[in-house]
Amino acid sequence: MSSPEAPKPPHGPDLARTQFAVSGPDLVIGGLRVAEIVETVGSPVFIYDADAMRQSYRALAAALDGFAAIHYSVKANPAKGVISLFLAEGAGVEIASLGEYRAARLAGARAEQILFAGPGKRRGELDAVIGEGIGEIHLETVEEIERVSEIATRLGRLVRVSLRINPIAAAQAGAMRMGGKPTAFGFCEEDIDGVLDLVRHAPGIALVGIHVYGGTQILEAAALLNQWQHGIRIAGDIAEKWGGPLETIDLGGGLGIPYYAGEAPLDLNAVAAGLPQLSSQLRSHPLLQAAKVIVEPGRFLAGPGGAYVAEINAVKHSRGTRFVITDGGMHHHLAASGNLGQIIKRDFPVVAASRMDEGALYPATVVGPLCTPLDTLAREALLPELKAGDLIAVLQSGAYGATASPSGFLSHPAAAEVIVEAGTMRSAQL
Amino acid sequence: MSSPEAPKPPHGPDLARTQFAVSGPDLVIGGLRVAEIVETVGSPVFIYDADAMRQSYRALAAALDGFAAIHYSVKANPAKGVISLFLAEGAGVEIASLGEYRAARLAGARAEQILFAGPGKRRGELDAVIGEGIGEIHLETVEEIERVSEIATRLGRLVRVSLRINPIAAAQAGAMRMGGKPTAFGFCEEDIDGVLDLVRHAPGIALVGIHVYGGTQILEAAALLNQWQHGIRIAGDIAEKWGGPLETIDLGGGLGIPYYAGEAPLDLNAVAAGLPQLSSQLRSHPLLQAAKVIVEPGRFLAGPGGAYVAEINAVKHSRGTRFVITDGGMHHHLAASGNLGQIIKRDFPVVAASRMDEGALYPATVVGPLCTPLDTLAREALLPELKAGDLIAVLQSGAYGATASPSGFLSHPAAAEVIVEAGTMRSAQL
Repeated sequence: MSSPEAPKPPHGPDLARTQFAVSGPDLVIGGLRVAEIVETVGSPVFIYDADAMRQSYRALAAALDGFAAIHYSVKANPAKGVISLFLAEGAGVEIASLGEYRAARLAGARAEQILFAGPGKRRGELDAVIGEGIGEIHLETVEEIERVSEIATRLGRLVRVSLRINPIAAAQAGAMRMGGKPTAFGFCEEDIDGVLDLVRHAPGIALVGIHVYGGTQILEAAALLNQWQHGIRIAGDIAEKWGGPLETIDLGGGLGIPYYAGEAPLDLNAVAAGLPQLSSQLRSHPLLQAAKVIVEPGRFLAGPGGAYVAEINAVKHSRGTRFVITDGGMHHHLAASGNLGQIIKRDFPVVAASRMDEGALYPATVVGPLCTPLDTLAREALLPELKAGDLIAVLQSGAYGATASPSGFLSHPAAAEVIVEAGTMRSAQL
Repeated sequence: MSSPEAPKPPHGPDLARTQFAVSGPDLVIGGLRVAEIVETVGSPVFIYDADAMRQSYRALAAALDGFAAIHYSVKANPAKGVISLFLAEGAGVEIASLGEYRAARLAGARAEQILFAGPGKRRGELDAVIGEGIGEIHLETVEEIERVSEIATRLGRLVRVSLRINPIAAAQAGAMRMGGKPTAFGFCEEDIDGVLDLVRHAPGIALVGIHVYGGTQILEAAALLNQWQHGIRIAGDIAEKWGGPLETIDLGGGLGIPYYAGEAPLDLNAVAAGLPQLSSQLRSHPLLQAAKVIVEPGRFLAGPGGAYVAEINAVKHSRGTRFVITDGGMHHHLAASGNLGQIIKRDFPVVAASRMDEGALYPATVVGPLCTPLDTLAREALLPELKAGDLIAVLQSGAYGATASPSGFLSHPAAAEVIVEAGTMRSAQL
């Protein structure tokens, strides 16, 4: 996408047309007019397009072409219907809490499909997942090694574990760099000898792999491949120190999606083109030949298929700025307000979901109902003339939306969450 | 507090001793050891000290000395027990949603004690509060004028309303400036003639006052007084344009509390010293002589009496940094993680609640269990040696904590919220 003649990546209405559909004035998702969905379930609402989410999965699976298994990262969107949709496609899941474990099981995940990661697993969580069954636990602290060993021994289990490694000098990419520096995540690569010794002598646990995570929201194929290559190299080093083969190499998630004007989607063809080299790298290492590679995307799978829709409450002109006040805001969509860390800059793509056919667009600042200037969903977005009762849709909102937001802030109702598909609609919790 | 010989404002352990109590190794809140509270209700937990909150109220009421009525801003902490505590002290309440209205009513507020503010009130919310009774509604948009008039007429009510004014060039202060610029809040002062005309001709509503809000988190008495003075001046101007006396002048909240090292509390004596002049200003204006002044603090009343307590899960050294990983984090306390806007810089005061008597302190970075570097509660805080099972307390956490955080993020359990008092403990929801 970096060649000079590359077309401008779609944003705003163009992205809405690419990702969903437009019919007359209406944004249409999953065969339903957004206005019709709002009439039925009210506003604000997160709308998840089942087919669009499946398409993201299938496109990634096709690009990976057997190189890696995909585990859906439940934290991106833990709605039962979203998890079960990816399970049905053949994904495993990656969870980061007992709550996510329960959500995954309720969605139909078998215990052995579940990986448990996270820097601060509670004893009670470990107790429960080991008791009920778990595919693999990623250990990140010395305390966890001891806890898992103790629980496994007590329950008479052999728990498959892997070690999360914080690389010394990773080939890193993406907006958030997670290796190289001091970190609360995983074990520093340079300290790994002592950690392997602990694991070797801990009863009840079987070391099966490593987990290396380099960054998040990566949009450049080369950066992603570079990071994966580095992960495989580290896996080889660790296997040699361990003195035995690895069964799993978890290369983390980190696959990004475009949010801001000018951002292009990750080029999956370019990713696919780089994989044969990584496969050779892997198969040529005697201790990695049989290893299963895992990637665990969340945002990439769930993000593009979701839209957050709010109804306009009032339109106000103040000192040259047009403010569109909606019934939705940061309490439902913290990331879109720019307050979920520095990773997510402003603004998410926003469209007028019930006035898609109006050509004259003017800058407008879209705000929510909270009594704080933080509650801003978009600044100077290009939108048609709008009035109370019209709808806006924030695109790219299927991941890190409803559950990553302070829904109790100012005691407004939670947003509805629905899955739409072939002209039908169901609760995302079913 | 700006004289050179002024003592350094208390922070960390000193603040804990000032605000609560310390006995041996234990932080003691409301007569209970924090460790004892955690043994009973688990961790993480928000602990609210009823006496400390009452003290904040009484200190402010004493300083105001009848100059203004205090309405507790429910958004700061909508727990029923917290609202009822301030009601029992004689406060009214300020709400910003139907949910807050219900919380206030359940806590015992009478309809006439309730002010309803906020830039995007839904029709359904207005319907409900007008039907059930409301003290005053602050109008912020033309749409709201029409809606309230329509509902009042339909229900046969006369609704008391005030106008939120966005000043032209306010004497402003605090970290977040809310006037002078384009804003979604209230009516611009320069547009007020047209707005007054609309109100004059709208049936079912009675204009009783104005609301001017200048800023938030103000720690300088002079800045606060300056802002209030300006608010009274605007009230006079509006009353003249309206051609009749005002019953209420809401000067907003904005009273700050110290969060960061070096910040001193608002000097209430200095506030008190400036009030006689404001009273004369008020009483000398024929249209304001009978007006009741209202202030609506939230953070100032609820913040200092609250602490957020988490248990340490693991301690890790990574490349020269000591990481203390706790079971609490940004999912419960977004503000402490620095992700609730730019207003709240890092770091909140953090103490080792079960090792208060240890003198040797070392820098530590306190993080939560989420799989993101955003989940950091404090950077390089000075803390004693700690191990799994120890407790940390984030001070100044009674406001904008539990409900202002993404509690569903990564599907961890919600934090408990308890009110402690004279050695007893109860749920904050009772």
